[in-house]
Amino acid sequence: MNHVAFLTAVSAILDDSQIKSDSESLNHWGKDWTKHFTPNATAILFPKNTKQVAAIVRLANEHRVSLVPSGGRTGLSAGAVAAHGEVVVSLDKMNAIGKFYEADRMVEVEAGVITKALQEFAQSKDLYYAVDFASSGSSQLGGNISTNAGGIKVIRYGMTRDQILGLTVVTGKGDVLELNGGMLKNATGYDFRHLFIGAEGTLGFVTKALIKLEKQPVNLTAMVLGVPDFGSVVQILNEFSKEITLTAFEFFDQVAIDKVLSAGHAKEPFESRTPFYVLLEFEATGDEVMDDAMGVFEQCMEKGFVLDGVMSQSVGQLHELWKLRESISETISAFTPYKNDVSVLITHLNDFISNIEQIVKDNYPDFEICWFGHIGDGNLHLNILKPNHLSQDEFFAKCQSVNQQVFETVQKYQGSISAEHGVGMTKKPYLEYTRSPIEIEYMKALKAVFDPNGIMNKGKIFDA
Amino acid sequence: MNHVAFLTAVSAILDDSQIKSDSESLNHWGKDWTKHFTPNATAILFPKNTKQVAAIVRLANEHRVSLVPSGGRTGLSAGAVAAHGEVVVSLDKMNAIGKFYEADRMVEVEAGVITKALQEFAQSKDLYYAVDFASSGSSQLGGNISTNAGGIKVIRYGMTRDQILGLTVVTGKGDVLELNGGMLKNATGYDFRHLFIGAEGTLGFVTKALIKLEKQPVNLTAMVLGVPDFGSVVQILNEFSKEITLTAFEFFDQVAIDKVLSAGHAKEPFESRTPFYVLLEFEATGDEVMDDAMGVFEQCMEKGFVLDGVMSQSVGQLHELWKLRESISETISAFTPYKNDVSVLITHLNDFISNIEQIVKDNYPDFEICWFGHIGDGNLHLNILKPNHLSQDEFFAKCQSVNQQVFETVQKYQGSISAEHGVGMTKKPYLEYTRSPIEIEYMKALKAVFDPNGIMNKGKIFDA
Repeated sequence: MNHVAFLTAVSAILDDSQIKSDSESLNHWGKDWTKHFTPNATAILFPKNTKQVAAIVRLANEHRVSLVPSGGRTGLSAGAVAAHGEVVVSLDKMNAIGKFYEADRMVEVEAGVITKALQEFAQSKDLYYAVDFASSGSSQLGGNISTNAGGIKVIRYGMTRDQILGLTVVTGKGDVLELNGGMLKNATGYDFRHLFIGAEGTLGFVTKALIKLEKQPVNLTAMVLGVPDFGSVVQILNEFSKEITLTAFEFFDQVAIDKVLSAGHAKEPFESRTPFYVLLEFEATGDEVMDDAMGVFEQCMEKGFVLDGVMSQSVGQLHELWKLRESISETISAFTPYKNDVSVLITHLNDFISNIEQIVKDNYPDFEICWFGHIGDGNLHLNILKPNHLSQDEFFAKCQSVNQQVFETVQKYQGSISAEHGVGMTKKPYLEYTRSPIEIEYMKALKAVFDPNGIMNKGKIFDA
Repeated sequence: MNHVAFLTAVSAILDDSQIKSDSESLNHWGKDWTKHFTPNATAILFPKNTKQVAAIVRLANEHRVSLVPSGGRTGLSAGAVAAHGEVVVSLDKMNAIGKFYEADRMVEVEAGVITKALQEFAQSKDLYYAVDFASSGSSQLGGNISTNAGGIKVIRYGMTRDQILGLTVVTGKGDVLELNGGMLKNATGYDFRHLFIGAEGTLGFVTKALIKLEKQPVNLTAMVLGVPDFGSVVQILNEFSKEITLTAFEFFDQVAIDKVLSAGHAKEPFESRTPFYVLLEFEATGDEVMDDAMGVFEQCMEKGFVLDGVMSQSVGQLHELWKLRESISETISAFTPYKNDVSVLITHLNDFISNIEQIVKDNYPDFEICWFGHIGDGNLHLNILKPNHLSQDEFFAKCQSVNQQVFETVQKYQGSISAEHGVGMTKKPYLEYTRSPIEIEYMKALKAVFDPNGIMNKGKIFDA
């Protein structure tokens, strides 16, 4: 590893404004939203095009310098943290929205385009970019693709993976691959596009993507329902799914809503308080759909799955109801939550959540738990809130010691230890709870094909 | 390669009914629907479970025997043909429909389950398996997955890839991998599931899958439209796509409809004859949708994109209209068609088709061409019909000599030389028109990871 020689060589292909090594920049671009690691980057590079990325990768191979790909750095698993003297390659300057293919409802974006900018572009064309989540104002498409980001509309539109019709990547060897060219049908051998999606930058860089846009949803309408127990949440999902195409099905618990309401981040949906809440959304395309929705709602009331409920009558009310769900992350961040992001089959959700509640109760009777998540996708966010009397270090240490039991329960139900946050460094010790040792061996062998010198995002997902 | 020792070892794990080597069986299971290759299999094996498949693969590695995975053998690219003394491993006896996960709308199937059987199972649960195509009565799920089969509902539901929530595979090394476990959200490293989908059995065997089922479509309604030129076909697609969620958008030309009608395979949709026809379908969920559809139809008439049209008023009429499209393959098979299956972006369709028409006209003014395809996916089936005065060999030779020009045109528009039929052996010489030499090198390197001794479906897609 020879950083000086590498940076000297790089300075021949990048101009001064594209290389930063002041301590503020190293700290800023060296970390993501994860707080457990101390950033320690050697330099930050800002390539302007795929060719420059490829040149950087080839030089990094020559000098055996480790690179960390960097997008909006909103990750929650330390996938974009440079903690070991790596050189960070930021895609910030590659943020152009390129050619729009109207007939194909497709647009080309560079990796550094912000999620929200793509959503706004789509809207300007009377179309819709369907992936949406809390960090859409600063997350970048390249990062979304590399972690296969999910969010609140997955039940209807799928993950980021499902929006990607083509990719330009630079492999860890420095080869540029143009993958799939935007086609819906292309049966010509292995689909590397899907290998790079979710690879967290360990195989190379995503530099461009061809993104599918959708028709704008029509007359989105939300219901918030008060629910007596978690079993009813799953029942409500089943009942509505049978009759209606849902665009979202979220849940949260009383702890979550109490904190959101006391922080003044949203309005009370109805007077009664219930242990759980459901926020569901659909396109009210006509009277038939509305009748169906009301019919299911009434059935759920009769069966006791729902105790109270409210439905949005306007776009304003829709946004008000969504605030109940969307403010949770921000609100609880004041309580230093220890976050887990797990998924299991919907079939197993009920048993799984009882198991987890018991584990936390047994181990930490004095900890407050806050549940919310994308139940329609089997995805639960388990947040353990820090009691005042514990220091942050003590609290995290205690949480980590319970992790093993949580992840053993995930494994028992054949679930995922990371539904949408990726593995990065924080989940790496637990990867075997979801992927078998033999799968991990194949992952390492595949990485060796695309990145034989192991320069790409070293130590993320697994230790090669 | 020692077939005798291999088969002796195999006979210790399979019973007599699971091994066939009579010439009728060798001929039957040694080929698919492709007619260009002479089957020449050494034996046919019928494992009953994943464990037996893995045992066969490990023995094949030991004895360096080449295996050909075999499903419903309805492929059109010779992906399942054993032409070089291979041992065929048929999944025919692994045809159980397994556990149904109601809350997840998911079912486990073995690789040998027939597509139609899965469609019927879904219907019995008031659900829908969305992938459908001409050979659904005999194609098997394992083959569909290995070729990422498409068909007539891709515009609404996607390819086979989009239905697969989990896979059990046996790699070419004989390792059993359980991939993704049915989860919608699972961000834990490389998604090998997508690597095996579309790999045509060159990386290993697919033995089981977890398949997503959909809500039953409601009140499917079809229109058949008479269209003056190909440009109007694309315009009609654009106009309808803006207003309506289409479940199908197919096209065919006058040659196709003439032959279908004279064979008595369908009824005339309306009196006038037009150069092109569109069959589109949507869910008429309510009056609003119907009004939208009629509105767009009238606009298209006014603009001259549509000359005549008819809409189904009942399920019976829906099926009648579909016969116009669905009978084409069977009808033209009497004319020994030379089939191409290409795709380009919808943006390029119009220019592409003009280019191809010119090429065929210049080279073979006396050949009849029949076009049809899944225009909503940019997928065109170009069929060149054999004139009576040519022998089959002369005809195929002439077609192959024009292939290069066809595929150069595909390349010019950055399209695919095989949209949904796979590469197998028939498209192998043309792979570089769609995939770059460097991509093909990476494919070979990946194959070496999963199948280091090169025993899996050797000589398919590429020569390793």
